[in-house]
Amino acid sequence: MSNEELEQLRASLDEKNKDLLKLINERAEIVQKIGNVKSKSGTKRYDPVRERRMLDLIADENEGPFETSTLQHLFKQIFKASLELMGDDEQKALLV
Amino acid sequence: MSNEELEQLRASLDEKNKDLLKLINERAEIVQKIGNVKSKSGTKRYDPVRERRMLDLIADENEGPFETSTLQHLFKQIFKASLELMGDDEQKALLV
Repeated sequence: MSNEELEQLRASLDEKNKDLLKLINERAEIVQKIGNVKSKSGTKRYDPVRERRMLDLIADENEGPFETSTLQHLFKQIFKASLELMGDDEQKALLV
Repeated sequence: MSNEELEQLRASLDEKNKDLLKLINERAEIVQKIGNVKSKSGTKRYDPVRERRMLDLIADENEGPFETSTLQHLFKQIFKASLELMGDDEQKALLV
């Protein structure tokens, strides 16, 4: 019984992983489009104010179970990977 | 025009961030349930074989634009945070 329950939960987790993967890649596509728009207008791709706003949005919207600080850490990793995807020279600024 | 385009893309990004936040937390709820089932049966919570399978699933399902290695790195961070959420003493094993 407990084993069956475990298998069901694992199947749900696999589905969530797939959804998450899809969503992270969709997010990356939007970031690429933003990079293109900024590239045309000559604007810097890395925008710390905008990043701060996105982190604040996470704090506002978080209903748990993860702590906001944990989620913000995860999102910073996603932001960093997204900048790397754009091949942005300014990506190092994010690590400061 | 380009500014309007940028604002629209940013609004889409905010929506994706919210969806992502929701999904990461839903995933965490499943992990908590798995932790409870394992706790009752006395099974270890950290399962490297299962983790490997989840990373392989990501490799199989990935359609980009992110590289598989980047996504696997991000997912490892999510796995780590999930184990911490369960307060698992074995979480350090994940860092090896």
